[in-house]
Amino acid sequence: MSIHVGIIGGAGYTAGELLRLLLFHPDVELKFVHSQSQAGKPLHSTHQDLLGETDLLFTDALDFDGIDVLFLCVGHGAAATFLEAHPVPDSVKIIDLSQDFRLKREGNNYVYGLPELNREAIRTAQHVANPGCFATCIQLALLPLAAAGQLHDDVHINAVTGSTGAGQAPSATTHFSWRSNNVSVYKAFNHQHLGEIGQSLHQLQPDFAHKLHFIPVRGNFTRGILATAYTPFAGSLDEAKALYQDYYAPHPFVYLSDSNPALKQVVGTNKGIVYLEKHDDQLLIISMIDNLLKGASGQAVQNMNLMFGREEKAGLTLKALAF
Amino acid sequence: MSIHVGIIGGAGYTAGELLRLLLFHPDVELKFVHSQSQAGKPLHSTHQDLLGETDLLFTDALDFDGIDVLFLCVGHGAAATFLEAHPVPDSVKIIDLSQDFRLKREGNNYVYGLPELNREAIRTAQHVANPGCFATCIQLALLPLAAAGQLHDDVHINAVTGSTGAGQAPSATTHFSWRSNNVSVYKAFNHQHLGEIGQSLHQLQPDFAHKLHFIPVRGNFTRGILATAYTPFAGSLDEAKALYQDYYAPHPFVYLSDSNPALKQVVGTNKGIVYLEKHDDQLLIISMIDNLLKGASGQAVQNMNLMFGREEKAGLTLKALAF
Amino acid sequence: MSIHVGIIGGAGYTAGELLRLLLFHPDVELKFVHSQSQAGKPLHSTHQDLLGETDLLFTDALDFDGIDVLFLCVGHGAAATFLEAHPVPDSVKIIDLSQDFRLKREGNNYVYGLPELNREAIRTAQHVANPGCFATCIQLALLPLAAAGQLHDDVHINAVTGSTGAGQAPSATTHFSWRSNNVSVYKAFNHQHLGEIGQSLHQLQPDFAHKLHFIPVRGNFTRGILATAYTPFAGSLDEAKALYQDYYAPHPFVYLSDSNPALKQVVGTNKGIVYLEKHDDQLLIISMIDNLLKGASGQAVQNMNLMFGREEKAGLTLKALAF
Amino acid sequence: MSIHVGIIGGAGYTAGELLRLLLFHPDVELKFVHSQSQAGKPLHSTHQDLLGETDLLFTDALDFDGIDVLFLCVGHGAAATFLEAHPVPDSVKIIDLSQDFRLKREGNNYVYGLPELNREAIRTAQHVANPGCFATCIQLALLPLAAAGQLHDDVHINAVTGSTGAGQAPSATTHFSWRSNNVSVYKAFNHQHLGEIGQSLHQLQPDFAHKLHFIPVRGNFTRGILATAYTPFAGSLDEAKALYQDYYAPHPFVYLSDSNPALKQVVGTNKGIVYLEKHDDQLLIISMIDNLLKGASGQAVQNMNLMFGREEKAGLTLKALAF
Repeated sequence: MSIHVGIIGGAGYTAGELLRLLLFHPDVELKFVHSQSQAGKPLHSTHQDLLGETDLLFTDALDFDGIDVLFLCVGHGAAATFLEAHPVPDSVKIIDLSQDFRLKREGNNYVYGLPELNREAIRTAQHVANPGCFATCIQLALLPLAAAGQLHDDVHINAVTGSTGAGQAPSATTHFSWRSNNVSVYKAFNHQHLGEIGQSLHQLQPDFAHKLHFIPVRGNFTRGILATAYTPFAGSLDEAKALYQDYYAPHPFVYLSDSNPALKQVVGTNKGIVYLEKHDDQLLIISMIDNLLKGASGQAVQNMNLMFGREEKAGLTLKALAF
Repeated sequence: MSIHVGIIGGAGYTAGELLRLLLFHPDVELKFVHSQSQAGKPLHSTHQDLLGETDLLFTDALDFDGIDVLFLCVGHGAAATFLEAHPVPDSVKIIDLSQDFRLKREGNNYVYGLPELNREAIRTAQHVANPGCFATCIQLALLPLAAAGQLHDDVHINAVTGSTGAGQAPSATTHFSWRSNNVSVYKAFNHQHLGEIGQSLHQLQPDFAHKLHFIPVRGNFTRGILATAYTPFAGSLDEAKALYQDYYAPHPFVYLSDSNPALKQVVGTNKGIVYLEKHDDQLLIISMIDNLLKGASGQAVQNMNLMFGREEKAGLTLKALAF
Repeated sequence: MSIHVGIIGGAGYTAGELLRLLLFHPDVELKFVHSQSQAGKPLHSTHQDLLGETDLLFTDALDFDGIDVLFLCVGHGAAATFLEAHPVPDSVKIIDLSQDFRLKREGNNYVYGLPELNREAIRTAQHVANPGCFATCIQLALLPLAAAGQLHDDVHINAVTGSTGAGQAPSATTHFSWRSNNVSVYKAFNHQHLGEIGQSLHQLQPDFAHKLHFIPVRGNFTRGILATAYTPFAGSLDEAKALYQDYYAPHPFVYLSDSNPALKQVVGTNKGIVYLEKHDDQLLIISMIDNLLKGASGQAVQNMNLMFGREEKAGLTLKALAF
Repeated sequence: MSIHVGIIGGAGYTAGELLRLLLFHPDVELKFVHSQSQAGKPLHSTHQDLLGETDLLFTDALDFDGIDVLFLCVGHGAAATFLEAHPVPDSVKIIDLSQDFRLKREGNNYVYGLPELNREAIRTAQHVANPGCFATCIQLALLPLAAAGQLHDDVHINAVTGSTGAGQAPSATTHFSWRSNNVSVYKAFNHQHLGEIGQSLHQLQPDFAHKLHFIPVRGNFTRGILATAYTPFAGSLDEAKALYQDYYAPHPFVYLSDSNPALKQVVGTNKGIVYLEKHDDQLLIISMIDNLLKGASGQAVQNMNLMFGREEKAGLTLKALAF
C-alpha cells in the first residue's frame, strides 16, 4: 500500500530533491506539494528537470486528511512557526528537514533522524528531525569511535561543502562570478551543527568531554561534503577498521573504503563513504556524502522508509554521478 | 525472466556508466564484465562509486553461452576487431557502442539504435549499433522536420560537449589545468558524426540535399551536450511545436519544453529535451542530452529493453542531477 | 604628466576591473571613485583584491575640476541619466562603458571606441562610447572582411560568454548552484549588441545587406567570450589570412593565430585572438577576448591612452591567466 | 642595466609562468629558454598565451656566459642532476624552483628563498632555493608566531591546492572528468613540504618542538592555495594582529586582512593574504597565495629582484583575477 505524502515548502532545494526521489519511489503516492509562492504552477516550472515526470501543480491548500506523512522543507525557524499555525493531526507523521527540532529539550518529542545512530527509535517515531548535512557527514566519521568509548581527546575537523548547502536564495557567496574557483572559510569553530554532533556523541559516549574543533569551508562545487577528522586512537589501524566495519555492517548506505576515496563517488547517491588512516597516534577519518541526499532529502526518504516499515533502500538505489 | 548480460571493455567510461545502470536494472543479471587490463580486480577498483553495490570482479574469460546480450564498450575500430577474433554465437544479441557499425553498407546487418527513429526495427534486431552522442543530440533536434519533409535549406548547428565525451585516456585537452574555464572548437565542419546524422535525415526525407554546418565545441563541464540548430521553416512556431509534439508523443524520453531549458535539466538522466523558437523565417531548435546516458550507455539500455520486449524505461527512471 | 581620472559607478564589476588597471598604470593619477552606496568605505571593502594596493575611499562627491577624464561605469540608461543630472565641463573627456551612446544618431557626438575600427577618430575624441563585450569579440572576427568588402552573404555567429558579462547583481542565472556546469542560450537572434555590430560593418562596407544570425550562450566560466562566425568567402585560406594579417598589423592587441586557440589564452589580458579555417566555400573565424578587459575596462583604458596621446599599450601589458 | 636571464626546463608550468612575468619585467633581458623537447619551436607553441609577446624560440644550447642568473624549472631531483652534468660558472647566480636544495645540509650553500624569512640573506646569495607552494602559504601563516616564540603546542593545518600544483604531466587526478567538482585528500600528515616548514620555524623559534598536523587537499580549481592553521595562543586577538602587522610591515607582498578573505583575492598576483580569528584559546590563521606566483615563479622573480638589488616588486605589480 502506498505511503501518501504531502510536502510543505515545495519550491526550495530540499523539496526539489525530495520530489526527484519520491516521484520514482515504488511505494509513494504524492498527494500535495505546498508552496505559497508557486501555487497553481506546475512543479517543473520551478524544478525544471521534472518536465515530463509529473503534471502535478503546486498548491496553497493543505489536506492533512489525505496523507500519511508530511515533509517540512521550510527554513530554520519556519518549521516550528508553520506547525504552530497549522496543527497536524496525530494520524500524520512528520519529517522535518529544518534544525528546529534536532536538539533534545523539554517537550520536544522528535527523534533525531540519523538511522546510523537511531534506527530503532526512528522505526516507531511519530516525528523525526532530519539531521543537518555537515552534522551527518561528521557523525558518520565519529559515531563508531563514540560507540566504542574511544573519543579521549579533542577532535580536529575540516569539512568543505558544495554551494547547494546554502539554499537557493541568491547571496554574495553564491554568486557564480564570485564562487567559481574560489574557496573560503566561514563560521570557524562556531558552526550551528556542532550542537547536534555533540549531542549524538554524548548519546553514545556519555563521558565525552573534549572539544570539536571544526573549520567549515565553502567549496567551488555544487554538491557534496568531504570531511576530515582526526584524534588520538590507542589501537592499530586494523583495530580501527574492524570497529568501523562492525558499526556500519547493519547499515545499507555507509561503506568503509579500502582506498582513499574522492567526493564524486557519493555525489548523486544516498551513500556515505568512510576511510581510515593511522599516523603515529592519530586516527584520520575521511568521510563524504551528497549534502542534498544523505545530508538532507535522501536521508528524509530513508527515515520515511523506516517509519513505515519499508525496505530501508526503497527508492534510494541511485546511480552515482561519477563524472 | 532476467536478461543475462556480458560487457566487453569493462574499464572504460561507457562501460562504467552501463554498470551503474545495469546493477540497478530490475530485469538484468550481470554475468561478466570483461577487461584485459583489470582482470581479477573488483569493479569498484576502477569504477569507485560502485563500492558497496557489487562484489563482481573483472574477468578476462568470455562465456558467451551464459548470456543473452553482449555490450561492446571498446573504442572505435576495436569493436569490429574484437568480433573478428571472437565469434559470438547467434543466441547472443549485440549492442555495440562504437561507431563501427553505424553506417549502412553491404554486409552490415546492424540496426542503427536510435529508438526515436528506428524503434520497431530495434525491437526485432539481432545487432544494434548505438548512436554517437553528438549524433543523438542533433538528430533529436532535426528528426521531426525531416519526417515532415521540411528540411529545405542548410542547417546551422553548434553543439558544446562535456569532457567525458573524450573518454578516459588523458590528453592535453582533458587535463584539468587546461580545460577548467576554457572553451575551444574542434573538427569544425568535419566531425565524424555528420555521417550518421545525414544517413538518418535521408531515411526520413530522401530528397534532403542540403548541408549541415556543424561546429563542435569543447565545454568546461563533464557531462552533457547542448546543441543549437536553425534552418528556414515556412510554418508558424505553433505549427513547428505541433510537429515536434506529435513526433515525440510516443517516445518516453524526449520532451518538448515550453520554456528555454538549460543543460543540467537532463544531466544524470536518459532524457532529451527539445525547445523551439521562431525568428523571422528561421526555426531555432535547442536540444540537450547527457552524453554518457542518452548519448551512450542509457540509450544502450533503452535499446536492450526494446530488443527484449521490456518496458522501454525499465532501469532508466533516473534522478536528474539538477544542481 | 599624469592623466587625472574620475570614475562614476565605482562599486560595479567594470569599475573594479578599471581600478585594477588604473592603479598600476604608469601615467594615471586616480582622483576619485564615486559610489553612492559605498561612499566613505575603502575601495578594497568592495574590490577585495585591492587590499594593500590603495587606501583610497569611495566618495559621493564629484570634483570635475580636478580630472582630465571621467569613466562612466554605470548601467545601461544610467549613463545618459547621470550626465543630464551632472553636466560635465568641456575640459573633461568622457569614456562611457554603457550602451547609451554607441549608436550614431542626431546629436550623439560620441565616437564608437573600438580602436581596431576607429583609432584615429578616438585620438581626437572628446567623448567615447566603449563597445559591448560580445560586439567587440564579433567585430574582431568580421572587420577585416568588411574592410575588404567581402561580406557577401549571411553570417552565422555563436558566442559563449562568461558570467561576469551579466554584472554583479545576483539573478537566477548567475546563482552558482544553477550555473555551475550548466550552459544555456539566451536572446537568440535578438541580442542588443547586433545594432552596434551592424553599424560598424556598414561603416566599412556600406553595401552590406545580409543578416547576422547570432546565438549567444551562457557559459559556465567567469571570464571570456569565444565566438565562431562563418560566411562564404571566395578566396583561399591564405588570402583570408593575408587580409586579416594586414588588417591587424598596426593594432597591438589583436593577433592572428596559426593554431586553433583556446579561450584561456586571452583571459586576464587585453588581447583579441583570431583564427581562420576554410571549409568548402565557408570561412570560419574563431575570435576570443576577455569580456572584462578587451570587452570592457581594458578597452576603456586603451581608448584613454589614445585620447591622451599615450602609448596604446600603456598599463595594459597584462600577464595571461593561462591556467 | 638589464639582468640577463636563462631558463632551464622551459616547457613546464613554472617556466611558463616565469616567462609571463619576465617578458614584461622592466629590468630583464631574456637570453635563452632551454628545452630539450621543444628546441627550435617558438615559446608560444607551448605557452600559447605568449602569442604576440615574443618571437623567441626554445633552444637546446646553453650559453652561460651571456647570463647573470639561471632559473632551474626542472622537476625535483632533476635540478641537482642538471647541475652535476652542466657546471655553471661562478658569474651566474642560480634560482632553483625544485626542492633539491631547500633543506640545510653539509655542502648545500643555497639560501632558502622565502623573502619574508630570509630577505637579507637572499640579497647577497649566489644560489637560492625557491620554497614550495604549500610551504610558502603555511609559513606565511606561522612565521610571526615563531618569530615571537609563541608556538607552544601542536599546529593543525589544512590546505587546499589548485591543480597546477601537480604540474603538466597528465595523471588520473588531473584528468578533467575526474577532478571537476571533486575534492580529495592526499599525503595526509606526510607531505614533503613539512621538512622545509619545520626548518624555518626552528630558525625563528629554536625551541619549537611540537607537531605540525597537515592535511593537504586537492581542490577543483587550477590556481591558488588556501590554508587554515590553528594553535593555542595566550594573547588577545588584538595582540596577535599587532604581532602579524609588525612582522609583515616591511614586506611588500603580504597583507593582514581585517575581513575574512577568499582565495580569488590573490589569484593572479604575487600576494599573500593572512587573516586572524581567536576562538577560546585557539588562534586561527587563514592564509592564501597563488601557487604558481607567490608559491613558485612570482617568488622566484621576487628573489631575483632582491639578489640584483632591484625594487622588490619590480615586474610583480600584477592585476588580480578577482573573478
